[in-house]
Amino acid sequence: MGGTQIRVALVNGQGAVLARTATATDAAGGPRAVVRQIRQLFAEVSRGAGPASLAGVGVCMPGPLDSEAGVVLGIPTLPGWVDIPIVAWLREALDLPVTLENDGVAAAIGEWRFGAGRGLSDFVYVTVSTGIGGGVIADGRVLRGRRRLAAHLGHMTILAQGAPCSCGNRGCWEAQASGSALGELARRLAAEVPGSDLLRHGPAVTARHVMEAARAGDALGLQLVAREAEFLGMGIVNLLHLFSPQAVVIGGGVSNGFDLLHPGIEAHVRACALPAFCAVPVVAAQLGQNSGVVGAACLVLPRSGKP
Amino acid sequence: MGGTQIRVALVNGQGAVLARTATATDAAGGPRAVVRQIRQLFAEVSRGAGPASLAGVGVCMPGPLDSEAGVVLGIPTLPGWVDIPIVAWLREALDLPVTLENDGVAAAIGEWRFGAGRGLSDFVYVTVSTGIGGGVIADGRVLRGRRRLAAHLGHMTILAQGAPCSCGNRGCWEAQASGSALGELARRLAAEVPGSDLLRHGPAVTARHVMEAARAGDALGLQLVAREAEFLGMGIVNLLHLFSPQAVVIGGGVSNGFDLLHPGIEAHVRACALPAFCAVPVVAAQLGQNSGVVGAACLVLPRSGKP
Repeated sequence: MGGTQIRVALVNGQGAVLARTATATDAAGGPRAVVRQIRQLFAEVSRGAGPASLAGVGVCMPGPLDSEAGVVLGIPTLPGWVDIPIVAWLREALDLPVTLENDGVAAAIGEWRFGAGRGLSDFVYVTVSTGIGGGVIADGRVLRGRRRLAAHLGHMTILAQGAPCSCGNRGCWEAQASGSALGELARRLAAEVPGSDLLRHGPAVTARHVMEAARAGDALGLQLVAREAEFLGMGIVNLLHLFSPQAVVIGGGVSNGFDLLHPGIEAHVRACALPAFCAVPVVAAQLGQNSGVVGAACLVLPRSGKP
Repeated sequence: MGGTQIRVALVNGQGAVLARTATATDAAGGPRAVVRQIRQLFAEVSRGAGPASLAGVGVCMPGPLDSEAGVVLGIPTLPGWVDIPIVAWLREALDLPVTLENDGVAAAIGEWRFGAGRGLSDFVYVTVSTGIGGGVIADGRVLRGRRRLAAHLGHMTILAQGAPCSCGNRGCWEAQASGSALGELARRLAAEVPGSDLLRHGPAVTARHVMEAARAGDALGLQLVAREAEFLGMGIVNLLHLFSPQAVVIGGGVSNGFDLLHPGIEAHVRACALPAFCAVPVVAAQLGQNSGVVGAACLVLPRSGKP
């Protein structure tokens, strides 16, 4: 569940998505309305499955959450989502065991078990879309920290006094390198650079348009992609130095342009990481839009040692 | 062992330093000369102890190291220290089991077992002196990562295109907030600000002089301390968001001025961390100059569950 969309999927023990549906989040309706939406999507998706075959329901959403207690502490983009005991509500609505996880961490778990992180003991998953989030697998375990609040990757400052961030701070990785930040910069520059493909989108230009323009050889598009790759690379170098992962896995909407971004990211890592970290691969997520739902399913799937 | 000094201490099972000696590192003499120095200091310190009472020798030094293989990969500040099998050499020289650890991680372990981190499952130890290093305890374990190279805390970029760092990158936390960075800035500003106490040290002004000047009420000293606290706070906010520790423990030379820095650090954390992290305490290391030697000793002390 996100601020924009709710997705519900039926996932089997091999991580395969058997059915999937989605709807726009009824943000205005508040948490009770969203629980009704989830119940309806769940009924749709689970229609084919016998109730006895359902192990449970894994739920992931943006935080901050108290995932152990099953409570949403407060979602900045969703009014009314403060101290909501979502696990209890959904358990009642769906009559199945329910487990809650931060969306970045869930997607990391999905990639760990069935995607680009298979077989690794140390990797960082980064999702780059509206914001930047993620999860960390370290020494063969999900990194949790106090109150399970580790891995708020988007809110590390990489440019002191940089762009204002939704969190109130400045120069956060999210403020410099998220899809929204890229879209915002594109809007500003398109107005100044005559002749760019991006101009025709007017104020509606997004990160996706930037990728399309770059793919078509548009000069401003290419320039914006190079800048985005550099800022992504900067945060990735920090993650290499801090967590020493075997790989960094990039997912989220912006990763649709991963092939365009990858050379710039890699060049930055080679130029700026300490020698011992230069060769660590930065790869695309393998589960694409499904990292989250598959990861959420992993929370209730029978375990094979992890996570 | 560091680039400036070698310290050897005799530590008992309760973490008490029974004897301690130190000498200037014979950097020019290379690794063989340093091993001879260590042997001599070891003989001095262990004189009173019966050989049967010695459990072993814990060694910590700046990295990068392959601590599992017992090999120094290369110490930038010490010429000739490339691919040195220091554990094998010391085992032969001292005739005792030898364990190697990165100095920041060893100090974190020392503080965990006998200092400010006692009883915590999640904390970050930061040492601020010539450079910035440290170690991370996460979910009740030492964070290791690939090749045990996690927690190179000093080399996270906090100011894109900022001050040049010894590592070749720019704007690393170390380049902005280490004792050397503070000394360097003091040298530059003292020449420009008439009447400061710091002027009398000329080009020899160091971070310690800045602390002394601030303590005496010198305006430039106070201004430099405020700036240092802000840059330290910036890196600390990143560590809070990434690792979600229960506390951040500050050691190293600059922590002699911890009482001066603390209000500024705390103000920055309150202003810039996400609400869930604002109240996490930032405290001074308890073992002072002994975090490293006590931590190194922990590597060979009989264990009580950790690390």
